[in-house]
Amino acid sequence: MNLLNLLIVDQEAMMSLKTEILEQPEVLARLLENQRATIETIAAALCNYDIRYLFLAARGTSDNAGLYAKYLWGAYNRMPTALATPSLFSLYGKPPSLKNALVVGISQSGRSPDIVEVIREGRRQGAPTLVITNAPDSPLAQAAEFVVDIQAGPEQAVAATKTYTAQLMAIAMLSVALNRAAGEADDRWRDLQDVPTLVRQALDLDPVIERAAERYRYMEQCVVLGRGFNYATAFEWSLKMKELAYIIAAPYSSADFQHGPVAVVSQGFPVLAVAPDGVVFDDMLALLKSLVNQQGVELLVISNREAALSLAHTPLRLPIRMPEWISPIVAITPAQLFSYYLTRAKGYDTEAPRGLRKVTLTQ
Amino acid sequence: MNLLNLLIVDQEAMMSLKTEILEQPEVLARLLENQRATIETIAAALCNYDIRYLFLAARGTSDNAGLYAKYLWGAYNRMPTALATPSLFSLYGKPPSLKNALVVGISQSGRSPDIVEVIREGRRQGAPTLVITNAPDSPLAQAAEFVVDIQAGPEQAVAATKTYTAQLMAIAMLSVALNRAAGEADDRWRDLQDVPTLVRQALDLDPVIERAAERYRYMEQCVVLGRGFNYATAFEWSLKMKELAYIIAAPYSSADFQHGPVAVVSQGFPVLAVAPDGVVFDDMLALLKSLVNQQGVELLVISNREAALSLAHTPLRLPIRMPEWISPIVAITPAQLFSYYLTRAKGYDTEAPRGLRKVTLTQ
Repeated sequence: MNLLNLLIVDQEAMMSLKTEILEQPEVLARLLENQRATIETIAAALCNYDIRYLFLAARGTSDNAGLYAKYLWGAYNRMPTALATPSLFSLYGKPPSLKNALVVGISQSGRSPDIVEVIREGRRQGAPTLVITNAPDSPLAQAAEFVVDIQAGPEQAVAATKTYTAQLMAIAMLSVALNRAAGEADDRWRDLQDVPTLVRQALDLDPVIERAAERYRYMEQCVVLGRGFNYATAFEWSLKMKELAYIIAAPYSSADFQHGPVAVVSQGFPVLAVAPDGVVFDDMLALLKSLVNQQGVELLVISNREAALSLAHTPLRLPIRMPEWISPIVAITPAQLFSYYLTRAKGYDTEAPRGLRKVTLTQ
Repeated sequence: MNLLNLLIVDQEAMMSLKTEILEQPEVLARLLENQRATIETIAAALCNYDIRYLFLAARGTSDNAGLYAKYLWGAYNRMPTALATPSLFSLYGKPPSLKNALVVGISQSGRSPDIVEVIREGRRQGAPTLVITNAPDSPLAQAAEFVVDIQAGPEQAVAATKTYTAQLMAIAMLSVALNRAAGEADDRWRDLQDVPTLVRQALDLDPVIERAAERYRYMEQCVVLGRGFNYATAFEWSLKMKELAYIIAAPYSSADFQHGPVAVVSQGFPVLAVAPDGVVFDDMLALLKSLVNQQGVELLVISNREAALSLAHTPLRLPIRMPEWISPIVAITPAQLFSYYLTRAKGYDTEAPRGLRKVTLTQ
């Protein structure tokens, strides 16, 4: 390898965030193709347990994937989800009783000790344990009875992108597989097959987003709104804005926002919203209209509905035909690109945000 | 009543937030005195159900009280808590199965339709339902099988204060009563008797806080850290800062903060922390030290430990002897005063924050 090649390799390594964002259609297609059989086997095995609810442990981006699971498995599998309180396990040494729970851990690296401890405690109590990870040899995976390997390939950038959408896909696949294993007719595999193409279409917004990001160069704070399945999208977008662009971005459901935090907005305040077509669209639209017309906020919207897009100073248009339940896997991708380009516009390092490492070990 | 009296009454009505903050010792003492028998009766009745977990619905301040329940009932009653996803009930019409759940609603007004719908669905599914409210005649209370009336008296200010600490007290009383009803030796009633006095001592910080708030007149954003039982305190403090002072205050556990959001802080960035003595103190202290020494943040700390107070530019000293499990009821009160005085320093209306009403009706 000559010096020029080394230089190119080096530059590419430095540009891993953008590469990883653009890699997502391929990662999702591979996961669908390769892991369906494993996920169906796991779903069949889980049918042998008397499960009343999920107990789910995760941190950071993986915790946002957990929010998607909470809504999706709640709506389609009738399964309530309790997000874990890892400190009760790791620090207080007072774990709750996990009888009739399916204990789930989600982690890219599989290495945060507090998440591992929740899974270990699940096994000690005899509960079924399931881990969704990009590291099938990690301590977390080793601790669990069932493991879904999201096979996203190495993620170099500190800010997680492809592992997030792959975690969502694994969660979605499990939702379908669990229903089918229980003998229910569930034809949502079809919808999932469309996801890689929909994500590719959403990523075609790249040049639009690059231009749009300029305007937000001096933004220091904002709120991010989403609801229902896309509550997770609001949280994940907000986390990318914090990690990469150092913007205090506060995420809310359209309902929670009205119970207090709405007070922060005034004329010109930036509101980012994820509002794809679906059951919660009218509720989101009513709030966005009121924010624009009464409070005079400036809106950036990710949507495939004209009524929302036309309210926005910056409309980011999603593919038109997209079932709501899979929309979080698609809708986050323009948000990732926006966070990336805004970080560049601000002159920050997209690959190594200050104060962060790829693997965070918390107790 | 002469004109002068009318004027005084009027001014007092306008000052309800401060009055309600200072009223808390009395409200808490009354609740302890009047409602213990009712709560013990409810706890005994709940022993007849086969409960595996709690399913808890709330919004805004009441949702933060729910976070306290999640940690407290998890640690002391071994009960996992799933925070509800009200939109699955109210908008999607796809409620999860609530078999073996105790369905809990927390609401000051008892009137938000989405929270009422969760309790109604619980009853439809035959689950035991429990409501903690300041409005025992509300639709929410009428929908529930068991009702704890927090008896806080009318709350005039839009920003909830005394109803929050009263909700925490009700949650704490239920925790003790449930253990005793199950035949366990639990002598925590003693700790609870001390709470009104501890809160009164914390409120004695009033003049210190009034002076300290000046410095933050031009603060526009901050993060608020807490962990374990005081995770709830971080969220509630953050909500008061948003509702009253229009500051984008982002709340985190010390662990979640390190999984991404820590990137937002730089030299001089304001960090507010709740770090009373207890199991999680060392973990919080390690983070605060690193934030001060490595990133150069400016710290405001509510604590009763010298090691944390001495790190802070603005130390707010809590009573020294205070069991960790009740500390959230005490620690929020200086935070309420801080939010109040900061709002005054900024020249905003402490009684009627923009965009808010006392009762928020979300679907």
